[in-house]
Amino acid sequence: MHVEYEGTNYCGWQIQQKVATIQGELAAAIRKITGVYPDLYGCSRTDKGVHALHHVSNFWTASSIPGDRFCHALNSVLPCDIAVKESFEEEQGFHARFSCVAKKYRYRIYNHNTRSSLLRNQAWFEPRRLDIEAMQTAAKAFIGEYDFSAFQAVGSTVSTSVREIYSAEVTAANSMYGGMDLYYEVAGNGFLYNMVRIMAGTLVDVGKGRISPEKIKEIILSKDRTRAGVTAPPQGLYLKEVYYSQHPRIKS
Amino acid sequence: MHVEYEGTNYCGWQIQQKVATIQGELAAAIRKITGVYPDLYGCSRTDKGVHALHHVSNFWTASSIPGDRFCHALNSVLPCDIAVKESFEEEQGFHARFSCVAKKYRYRIYNHNTRSSLLRNQAWFEPRRLDIEAMQTAAKAFIGEYDFSAFQAVGSTVSTSVREIYSAEVTAANSMYGGMDLYYEVAGNGFLYNMVRIMAGTLVDVGKGRISPEKIKEIILSKDRTRAGVTAPPQGLYLKEVYYSQHPRIKS
Repeated sequence: MHVEYEGTNYCGWQIQQKVATIQGELAAAIRKITGVYPDLYGCSRTDKGVHALHHVSNFWTASSIPGDRFCHALNSVLPCDIAVKESFEEEQGFHARFSCVAKKYRYRIYNHNTRSSLLRNQAWFEPRRLDIEAMQTAAKAFIGEYDFSAFQAVGSTVSTSVREIYSAEVTAANSMYGGMDLYYEVAGNGFLYNMVRIMAGTLVDVGKGRISPEKIKEIILSKDRTRAGVTAPPQGLYLKEVYYSQHPRIKS
Repeated sequence: MHVEYEGTNYCGWQIQQKVATIQGELAAAIRKITGVYPDLYGCSRTDKGVHALHHVSNFWTASSIPGDRFCHALNSVLPCDIAVKESFEEEQGFHARFSCVAKKYRYRIYNHNTRSSLLRNQAWFEPRRLDIEAMQTAAKAFIGEYDFSAFQAVGSTVSTSVREIYSAEVTAANSMYGGMDLYYEVAGNGFLYNMVRIMAGTLVDVGKGRISPEKIKEIILSKDRTRAGVTAPPQGLYLKEVYYSQHPRIKS
């Protein structure tokens, strides 16, 4: 299933007791349709308030409903802030998380002297003028294979903090709400905890002139979290694409 | 003041007892800042669930706060789904409603085979394939001065239902949520109750092939509400511009 959701009203993807989560709502909807509570595997967890344009998950079912009909059946019982965009039968052995070879995230920044009511849950509001060219230069410095410890939440425990970033760019467009919409899009073979949000926070510091674009490589190589910028807030973050091809080099 | 708001959680613009309204929240915010509950005049009422990119309202105050500072002062106390985008001192005699010479509305339609969670409160979802060219042709037929009774909610009482439409067009773009974003934008010297929403409902009927674009003129001239389409739902409607120039002919 490809699932799009607004994370505002959920405590993230992963199922938990007593609070609403995306995985919990999807599993409950599948039970309503098939009669059986499924084991539901997601391509990744997202945090409270983070959105997905394209999250992938899979489950096994004995239901006679054809794979491509699950989409509409589930949408009829899901809450309106979760939408299944596509569903189909996969090969045996497919696993949304373990078969995934790359992911792309988007981080949205709303840059204007006044906040927007319509974007309050869907972008990070930054009132100061940002040097977009400097941010664009800085984003390119993330491309490559590095130990990204400086861009990982303190206290994370993963076996390795080496990841490869295939593409990273900042684009800007006039916003329909006045001012500018800025999008930071980044694709890679994997992401550390809070990595995209720390990258976004660092890029905004570059935009404000607090960090020069030339310093990004140095910050990466320092492996020092305190040298990177703040963790940007969750509402600007979107999981945008998940790749299962055997060709993991993603062009942006 | 230019105010942007998401109407989802409000019972429209106009102040009412016991329910949240945009006018009520703005007046309460002004009292917090100035100490005095104001008479607040709005350029127009909007219905429950309808949004504004650019609503204009004015009030008189003896406060020493400069006009352009009200914007930030009010934003600091307003709910996050209401944002003042700009504020300034106006000439004596300015009245947001009576000085207004023209308005522009936007109606947003999300056209895809599956709904979008992120647009649930901000667009009308239409899953059927729409003939956009036919809708573009039909929209042009609204331009001109007519008695628009056929595009007015039944039971409305206004002194005249003659209005002049200066521009009306449908544009389409690939949506970041998959499928197409359709925008119907219409400017005129005034609008009858539900007029834009009935126009949008009629255009979607044109898109589905139920009404031919050539019939629009005939429907207008019939003055028969039953010949136009349904009233499109509120969440797709945005007040987009309000004009106070002495030159009311608006180019789209």
